[in-house]
Amino acid sequence: MSKTAELRAKANAATLDRLNAADPVLVDIKPAGEVVPGMTPDMILTSGRPMPWRDYVTGQRQALIYGAIFEGLAKDEADAVARLDSGKIKVGACHEHGCVGSVAGIYTASMPVFVVENRAAGNRGFCNFYEGASRKRLNYGSYDDTVHQALIHIEKVLAPAIRAAVQAAGGIPLKPIMSRAVHMGDELHSRNTAGSVLFTRELTPHFLALYQKEGDKIRQTLEFLQQNEYFFLRLGMAAAKSMADAAHGIEGSSVVTAMTISCRGFAIRVGGLAGEWFAGPHAVVEAQLFEGFTKDDIEWIGGESHITETVGLGGFAQAAAFSLQKYQGGSAEAMVKANAGMYGITVGESASFQIPYFGYRGTPTGIDLFKVLETGVTPVIDGGLAGKGGGQIGAGILRAPIECFEAAAAAYTKRYGGK
Amino acid sequence: MSKTAELRAKANAATLDRLNAADPVLVDIKPAGEVVPGMTPDMILTSGRPMPWRDYVTGQRQALIYGAIFEGLAKDEADAVARLDSGKIKVGACHEHGCVGSVAGIYTASMPVFVVENRAAGNRGFCNFYEGASRKRLNYGSYDDTVHQALIHIEKVLAPAIRAAVQAAGGIPLKPIMSRAVHMGDELHSRNTAGSVLFTRELTPHFLALYQKEGDKIRQTLEFLQQNEYFFLRLGMAAAKSMADAAHGIEGSSVVTAMTISCRGFAIRVGGLAGEWFAGPHAVVEAQLFEGFTKDDIEWIGGESHITETVGLGGFAQAAAFSLQKYQGGSAEAMVKANAGMYGITVGESASFQIPYFGYRGTPTGIDLFKVLETGVTPVIDGGLAGKGGGQIGAGILRAPIECFEAAAAAYTKRYGGK
Repeated sequence: MSKTAELRAKANAATLDRLNAADPVLVDIKPAGEVVPGMTPDMILTSGRPMPWRDYVTGQRQALIYGAIFEGLAKDEADAVARLDSGKIKVGACHEHGCVGSVAGIYTASMPVFVVENRAAGNRGFCNFYEGASRKRLNYGSYDDTVHQALIHIEKVLAPAIRAAVQAAGGIPLKPIMSRAVHMGDELHSRNTAGSVLFTRELTPHFLALYQKEGDKIRQTLEFLQQNEYFFLRLGMAAAKSMADAAHGIEGSSVVTAMTISCRGFAIRVGGLAGEWFAGPHAVVEAQLFEGFTKDDIEWIGGESHITETVGLGGFAQAAAFSLQKYQGGSAEAMVKANAGMYGITVGESASFQIPYFGYRGTPTGIDLFKVLETGVTPVIDGGLAGKGGGQIGAGILRAPIECFEAAAAAYTKRYGGK
Repeated sequence: MSKTAELRAKANAATLDRLNAADPVLVDIKPAGEVVPGMTPDMILTSGRPMPWRDYVTGQRQALIYGAIFEGLAKDEADAVARLDSGKIKVGACHEHGCVGSVAGIYTASMPVFVVENRAAGNRGFCNFYEGASRKRLNYGSYDDTVHQALIHIEKVLAPAIRAAVQAAGGIPLKPIMSRAVHMGDELHSRNTAGSVLFTRELTPHFLALYQKEGDKIRQTLEFLQQNEYFFLRLGMAAAKSMADAAHGIEGSSVVTAMTISCRGFAIRVGGLAGEWFAGPHAVVEAQLFEGFTKDDIEWIGGESHITETVGLGGFAQAAAFSLQKYQGGSAEAMVKANAGMYGITVGESASFQIPYFGYRGTPTGIDLFKVLETGVTPVIDGGLAGKGGGQIGAGILRAPIECFEAAAAAYTKRYGGK
């Protein structure tokens, strides 16, 4: 074994250990401006590798403009564009601030975020809230009075009620919920039904105790939690971010620690190549669209929820979630095949998430960029799809583009020498 | 087609229609003595086809004696035996009283039962409560102070709290819960995790509203519901009983409408042969026992929870519940094979319960005794196992004995003429 190969094998094993050791706990809910590292009142975070404002186009650009208006940083669209052009309003990349964006992933300073602490490593991951089941949501590039009201409802009702319950509980460990959800038909990216029910279950005894004092706020929050089975996604994302960040930055590691989408394409980062993003074209997608939409309506406006795939969930746990067929298409057979294929490109198996269908085998975990290149098999990703003009128009199965891995391999070889 | 064959085809189709049309709703919780048809204060119901007291042996006989003591019908074991011998205490078969027994299935008059109304047909099914996770339970033939206290906790705390919530809800429709649970990894016989969580979820808003008045009773009930993931089994059983009874008594039907176990063996009844039970030997079982037990420790003390298999759940929905492997053994492959095999012995598919792994195909539903005899394939049943001296000692996969079907076919041919 060459010296580089030796370093890499050790580094990749250490990466897997950190992923497996992670202990993500929901410890608080706070406005992004108070808790997200480097977040300022004039900043908007969005999905994708870091880019200057002028590079954002189509729906993602529009989502940033809407974010500025929602936050009161601009009085209208023209004003927002002027302030973004002049740099008075700043744009940041979620991943560089401990956050992960769902679709466009718009974070403004006033938005409440889940604070998830990885108690094994001491680092934190953050994610803002699911906006509700409406096809139109700010993170899908839509904005109107209903979208605005939904965001205010999160800030004024959901966040304080859930925060009170989380504080009463002394924090909610997320890994046990995630582990059980995978045994109950979730893969925790495009299916979060069990996760949402189990999370609500953890809050319920505290809701009972808080009800007398907080009354209607608790009732409304319980109602929202019961109606929105996607709710847990953001908690899973924050947990996954706290896991992946703890596994990032290990010298010599060739394991992917984040995958991200912007309007300009796909990008990945790698554990042993901290500080760099490796860009490629857009993902290839097999879509199942809502009625009335065609493939031409799909627009890439960002997305980082595949932090879940990065830690062995989502597409890497499809065979635990056959119920997902109805939402994103495909067949049980195809799901088994795609999921099984991921064992060929990962460094090991999850000690936290097991697939009953595979005899409780741990999910394939830790994407090794060199295995991707050797096999030509790219990561499979479950995901929601945005449409032109904003709003969700369907869901589907994405494949990460090989170009990102080629670019990362070139950088790896340059830095660490031959394979 | 012969006249008999024609009658049977129509009758079996009508049977399937009634199973599919059933709409089981939890409408109340009442003491068995107040609501179970034919139940008297001096009566104890148990699992299995109707038998005289003297025929009960081993653990099932002991469970009846314990039931008499629990209910205060006898002051000790000798007194109970004397009163049972003399007929002062009567023994009844659950199925003949609209009830279904879990394992020994001991019902006494004071015990609260779930009242499930099949709103499509107007009939009712009943089941008493899950006693908790202790290996020792009255329905597993155990009795001591802890078992007694658990039964009193059900009567004084759980039943009134849940009843209040059910009344506030105006009844809890069970089919939507059951249908969703099957999409979340339950087969609703040996796995009821999702069912229990979803049922609790339905009660929660009412618990919030009741908490101020009822206080600790609500808190304790929520705690019990959250700790006992088998809780929903009894609701699924009562629902299945209300479905199967509505499909019973159709002239010419060769569909099995109940399967039951006693200390003396297995028995079935058939839709077109009302009033008769067809007995056979004990089921064949592939067991996975708790540590320290061997196959020789297994004792048959009764069981009717396979009313779930009778309506297309349990073993007939195994491929929806791969998580069950850990509890009852086997492999995903074996579960798929066993489940798929049930399509060959049933008259159709459930319109209520679908298996995601089979592309959302309805579960095999309505066991046709002639298809069992033609194929030699007998119903596959998930179930808990009792041990000698009482208590649960494991779980396993049972196969109904062919002799019951042979006896039923002989009676069918005698009554309706040649095939």
